[in-house]
Amino acid sequence: MNNEDFFETYGFSIEELNELLKTKQYRQLREKINDINEVDLAEFLEDLDQEQRLLVFRMLHKDNAADVFANLPVEVQAQIIISITDTELKSIVDELYVDDAVDMLEELPATVVRRVLKNATPETRKLINQFLKYPEDSAGSIMTAEYLSLKKEMRVLNAFDYIRTHGQDSETIYVLFVTDNERHLEGIVTVKDLLMHPYETRISDIMDDNIIKCTTTDDQEEVAELFNRYDLISLAVTDQENRLVGIVTVDDIVDVMEDEATEDIEKMAAILPTDKSYFQTGIFETWKSRIPWLMLLMVSATFTGVIINNFENALATCVALTGFIPMLMDTAGNCGSQASVTVIRALSLNDVEFRDILKVLWKELRVAIFCGASLAIVNFVKIFLIDRTLFHNSSITLMVDLAVCVTLFVTVICAKLVGCSLPMIAEKFGFDPAVMASPFITTIVDAVSLLIYFSFARVLLGIG
Amino acid sequence: MNNEDFFETYGFSIEELNELLKTKQYRQLREKINDINEVDLAEFLEDLDQEQRLLVFRMLHKDNAADVFANLPVEVQAQIIISITDTELKSIVDELYVDDAVDMLEELPATVVRRVLKNATPETRKLINQFLKYPEDSAGSIMTAEYLSLKKEMRVLNAFDYIRTHGQDSETIYVLFVTDNERHLEGIVTVKDLLMHPYETRISDIMDDNIIKCTTTDDQEEVAELFNRYDLISLAVTDQENRLVGIVTVDDIVDVMEDEATEDIEKMAAILPTDKSYFQTGIFETWKSRIPWLMLLMVSATFTGVIINNFENALATCVALTGFIPMLMDTAGNCGSQASVTVIRALSLNDVEFRDILKVLWKELRVAIFCGASLAIVNFVKIFLIDRTLFHNSSITLMVDLAVCVTLFVTVICAKLVGCSLPMIAEKFGFDPAVMASPFITTIVDAVSLLIYFSFARVLLGIG
Repeated sequence: MNNEDFFETYGFSIEELNELLKTKQYRQLREKINDINEVDLAEFLEDLDQEQRLLVFRMLHKDNAADVFANLPVEVQAQIIISITDTELKSIVDELYVDDAVDMLEELPATVVRRVLKNATPETRKLINQFLKYPEDSAGSIMTAEYLSLKKEMRVLNAFDYIRTHGQDSETIYVLFVTDNERHLEGIVTVKDLLMHPYETRISDIMDDNIIKCTTTDDQEEVAELFNRYDLISLAVTDQENRLVGIVTVDDIVDVMEDEATEDIEKMAAILPTDKSYFQTGIFETWKSRIPWLMLLMVSATFTGVIINNFENALATCVALTGFIPMLMDTAGNCGSQASVTVIRALSLNDVEFRDILKVLWKELRVAIFCGASLAIVNFVKIFLIDRTLFHNSSITLMVDLAVCVTLFVTVICAKLVGCSLPMIAEKFGFDPAVMASPFITTIVDAVSLLIYFSFARVLLGIG
Repeated sequence: MNNEDFFETYGFSIEELNELLKTKQYRQLREKINDINEVDLAEFLEDLDQEQRLLVFRMLHKDNAADVFANLPVEVQAQIIISITDTELKSIVDELYVDDAVDMLEELPATVVRRVLKNATPETRKLINQFLKYPEDSAGSIMTAEYLSLKKEMRVLNAFDYIRTHGQDSETIYVLFVTDNERHLEGIVTVKDLLMHPYETRISDIMDDNIIKCTTTDDQEEVAELFNRYDLISLAVTDQENRLVGIVTVDDIVDVMEDEATEDIEKMAAILPTDKSYFQTGIFETWKSRIPWLMLLMVSATFTGVIINNFENALATCVALTGFIPMLMDTAGNCGSQASVTVIRALSLNDVEFRDILKVLWKELRVAIFCGASLAIVNFVKIFLIDRTLFHNSSITLMVDLAVCVTLFVTVICAKLVGCSLPMIAEKFGFDPAVMASPFITTIVDAVSLLIYFSFARVLLGIG
């Protein structure tokens, strides 16, 4: 948040806070900071030095402290945990939502984790340990345990009483889950439903028993799709026996969607995805995520080299041909990556499935014919007018021009067809389609375009 | 939703519904379909033929009909509007949320729009017309008018009464907005706050007056950032005079985030973004979105050709050099796009800003040195062992090998530095950094890599 927005929201500036801190006007500072949203306050704390940060953190009201703590980066959390007393730590751990606690513990060093668990209540400790076991990127790993469950015999009035008594610590109170005594999920009721019905109505009469839910082992991407499809604000997570074990809330799904998009984008650029943000990733880690594909693609480009070497004679006879290689390869690569990226995105949004492959090929074929024709015509004219006439390059004959442009046309079609089909085939066989994006397609399409080029050169120019 | 999940949720299958429809058991069909979630039901309707669809649509309860209608694709909506009576249309238009109505009207043909507006109440018509004026992709264009606003003198009990009376048509009742008589936004209170306080508490005592909000002209991407940052479920939208005019809800933001990610991905693949899904976009439209960049990149690849032509003599003297051109160009392009895509994503997630440019360059330089060195060493050994020794290609001397690998090393460094800096510079000057991705970077980096290659060839091999 920039200073201007900050001032507009709170009526005082970050500089004023720093001034109060510097001049030790702690009473006024305490008043002001407890008025600030936990996200903005965490950002303010992050910018302070270690000592000041601890000082300000201790000024926070108990319930506020845990919220702010959950919004701090893990390095700062670790450093606070080390500096505070057991009593302080205990009260924070008790207030933290289980999903936030688990997120933190997954990244903290083992000694710090032990100190946190030691200061948790036995109940929380058991929950945390259970949550830590769910596989990464599963519904279990992003769910939280703070939800409210009702019984279907309750009436609306009882439900409100229950919410008043137990709702304070729940991450959302707007969707309530109806369970039997074995925690089997029986229905869902919203606070809106409760408010719209008379106090004496039974929950069983207003609950929705067509339940949209997921299980702990479902992939977080599937969970995000459910939220997107049904416009949910929270979703029940059950175990294999349909027992309610947690809920996922929409704010976590927003993060999941962002992470998944980043992951797809990274894969498309031949990067192995990392979970961390740009500056959090070290030099060595970044190297490790980038080098495997670079190495593989470099070695596979050898084939392109072999093709060129096999046509050395053709190139020696007609040197003008070499100059068009980069243009042909680049255009082929661009066409292929346009098709592949479009299809990959459509696959990940479920707009396209494998059974649509013929429909996709047919569409891409027609688009490719239009693209190929427009590019070939423009290029033909350009080569004739600029390269041949303007630059007086007499080695570029009309036949050379023709060979280049026919190649261009055929290459564009091949590139689009390869580009759209490979991701779909990859998905069919259980591979990640995103990996079949630009760099991989480029390498294949390069070789294809050269083969086409030299074949046409041979036929049209009678060389090779 | 697949058939299996459908059956698990509702206890009957889609085939059963089709069977009931075919055998004209309309009473049972009506009972079943009114039990189905509006999203699933819309999907079921979509698959029916025109006549059956209208038949089933007319079986829906009044309040259900509008919800299902809002979930249908616009072609189907248009076709239903044309087929139903004015009375039926009126009741749907009245029940539709303004944001859904506006989304639909933006895509319908003018004659259908006129019919819809004619059947709206004067109030709704005025609202719709006002909403249609907000610029595309602004907060105004995604907000809705169905929210609840309270007065600060109210007590919790009055607030609940108010919600009970007016909440049915509101898109969310969980966040309530406190306004004065001129609709100026004074505070925000959640249903959770109301439930956690005694009935006689005044709203002014529990409302939060540090209001996170946006204005109608804010870009939807900024609005999505606010939701993400503060974990919101809805957000107030005000006009320039701080008067509340609408709210944005998190389900719309989930769509915005998906659209924005798709847009970024398309731009990175040199495609002009479209709003429509893969099969909704026609052949000509797809051609139009792909050809501009293809054309531009094809023409700019001419420079690469010019560079090669200028070194024709060098290439004629040492034909082995030509075979390595694709590998060098591809590797440079891949390195450049890795760096550019990483930085573009970091920019769009606000992990990186322009003032970090030196930090980014310094990081990329070090990563590039590691990547370049590993690639060069592997390549040196590979060329020596495979190309020279195994394939007995005597024209590949140690000096040629050296020239290729030194070029590779230097090229990787240049590619990474160009790749990371161009998107940041583009953003600084108000351009979209996503356009500075793979294809654009590749074209630049191709030329750079060839210049480096021929310079080293000249120095190390004494040719050219």
